[in-house]
Amino acid sequence: MKTKMEVMILKAQINIADCVVFTFLKFYYIKFSLIRRILSELWKVLETSGAKFTIDSWRRKDPKEGGGITCVLEDGNTFEKAGVNITVMRAPLSKKLQDHMRARLVLILGKDFPEDEDFTFFAAGISSVIHPKNPYVPTIHFNYRYFEVQDKDGKQRDWWFGGGTDLTPYYLDKDDVKQFHQTLKDVCDLYDKNTYTKYKKWCDKYFYIKHRGERRGVGGIFFDDLEGPDQEKIFKFIEGCAQAVIPSYIPIVKKNMNREFSENERIWQLLRRGRYVEFNLVYDRGTKFGFSTPNARFESILMSLPLTARWQYMHEPQEGSPEWKLLNVLKNPRDWV
Amino acid sequence: MKTKMEVMILKAQINIADCVVFTFLKFYYIKFSLIRRILSELWKVLETSGAKFTIDSWRRKDPKEGGGITCVLEDGNTFEKAGVNITVMRAPLSKKLQDHMRARLVLILGKDFPEDEDFTFFAAGISSVIHPKNPYVPTIHFNYRYFEVQDKDGKQRDWWFGGGTDLTPYYLDKDDVKQFHQTLKDVCDLYDKNTYTKYKKWCDKYFYIKHRGERRGVGGIFFDDLEGPDQEKIFKFIEGCAQAVIPSYIPIVKKNMNREFSENERIWQLLRRGRYVEFNLVYDRGTKFGFSTPNARFESILMSLPLTARWQYMHEPQEGSPEWKLLNVLKNPRDWV
Repeated sequence: MKTKMEVMILKAQINIADCVVFTFLKFYYIKFSLIRRILSELWKVLETSGAKFTIDSWRRKDPKEGGGITCVLEDGNTFEKAGVNITVMRAPLSKKLQDHMRARLVLILGKDFPEDEDFTFFAAGISSVIHPKNPYVPTIHFNYRYFEVQDKDGKQRDWWFGGGTDLTPYYLDKDDVKQFHQTLKDVCDLYDKNTYTKYKKWCDKYFYIKHRGERRGVGGIFFDDLEGPDQEKIFKFIEGCAQAVIPSYIPIVKKNMNREFSENERIWQLLRRGRYVEFNLVYDRGTKFGFSTPNARFESILMSLPLTARWQYMHEPQEGSPEWKLLNVLKNPRDWV
Repeated sequence: MKTKMEVMILKAQINIADCVVFTFLKFYYIKFSLIRRILSELWKVLETSGAKFTIDSWRRKDPKEGGGITCVLEDGNTFEKAGVNITVMRAPLSKKLQDHMRARLVLILGKDFPEDEDFTFFAAGISSVIHPKNPYVPTIHFNYRYFEVQDKDGKQRDWWFGGGTDLTPYYLDKDDVKQFHQTLKDVCDLYDKNTYTKYKKWCDKYFYIKHRGERRGVGGIFFDDLEGPDQEKIFKFIEGCAQAVIPSYIPIVKKNMNREFSENERIWQLLRRGRYVEFNLVYDRGTKFGFSTPNARFESILMSLPLTARWQYMHEPQEGSPEWKLLNVLKNPRDWV
């Protein structure tokens, strides 16, 4: 009943949040119904997993600037830690933000971007990381976001989308990985035939733990600065990507969540989670940018970290072992579809 | 016998390393006997703790540039993870290193530091982190290092020392913290009456987890760019600091290592270790610099990370609880002596 009550509260919270969020959302952005649909699909799995939810509605220091909703479950039966974070904000484009985006702003706005003019920055996004308990179930991460820059007269000067979905298995099940990539490819193909290949490569490049020479996982898709003449078409693509999260992932969860595993397999999972922490804290642009933003909500930023992680000095899997096979793929990314 | 054999091998390794290291070490730097003395004191504790040692002698990609010895124990009875790292290197002062040190180099060398001249960089240091098993025993970290810049004629153009020792308790025992700080103050006072106050403040400032508004621990001393007319006097101070590690810490270990603790106390310890990871991966200059150095030995850099760490969303200790009392001190550093 505790869990049921919590889910009920969660759902109510989402409805309340709906009102807050709608005041910001434009017709063309991730309509809240989309987020709600993804969430409600996730709940179907989460509800049965003995999960303990924490749901926080929060506002920025200046509430006019927006806020977000952070939902985290910890120590469930199926999921060790899972978080969904929704942020919607509109704020003056600070010097820091400008510096962070300068390359893009100069690129896009060119000479039209005078440094002394005041701009407003709008951002709306959903991000999620799910760390399962069973080492045979991969971790998934997805993040879809929309940015807009307006000048002081409220005129839209620039907009773009970014996002991606990627998978981090602890043991390699080629069929699962193929299924995951195929689902993403199907969505990309509807948008443009070259998109999957381009964003798959971008994903392998982005989730790279440079000091170890290995990727965080088996990738997926990743993109930024996505814009074009037909905003509606791009939004449809983003919507498709977000809707693909459930069918790309939940079958893998259901297939593997009850597999037996040993203490050694659990230790390997924790070691890989250590690498996840390394990537997120050392390289992830979102985390770095978050930490450098004044009044950033660090608890929402760090929601992506696993409940538990482990570091062993010079841990090297035995040649030919399942752990070694995974590592091999992380060092040499493959084509899956 | 396994442990005894390992210790025997370790000691032999140290003697071998002695030869390697001595070819680099100058009479005035941390004489190897000092490092050996610290190590051998540590072994006395470590030997009895059922520790499993890993000892690696390693060289840089170009062996002429030096190398180091990394000793790590994991999953002992007293210590969950402990590492000692010795590095001695001499290499061309790369563009990257120059950029990292530019502020200092410009400050010290002024107009004498032409960008197109070739310089050689010498560095020698010992660093160590010890994470105990019992939550009532604090983690300790120390690091003492010497740098020298030579021009192409082998002429010494600049040198300086850096270092520090700091304590990270999980539960606050004021007597232990006072004892720790007093031991450091005694060493500092022998060098100069203002040193302890200055380096204690520097330590509180350095080990600051900015996004959380809290320090990693209860501090100690920290300094960099230490130079002066009397190099021998400064070396004596460094030697004193290194020798103070054992008397500042081992009594605290012995006093608390057999205290009983609950599952909740263990969880709190793991959460604090998560913060340790956050500091080291996000803020620590040594780690950041290490990751950006070509061919850096990342396993030695990451040796400082705990065996296990934990992240819980919005974990806040109950007001008045021992965990809350510790956090209070981490948010508002105190004077201890």
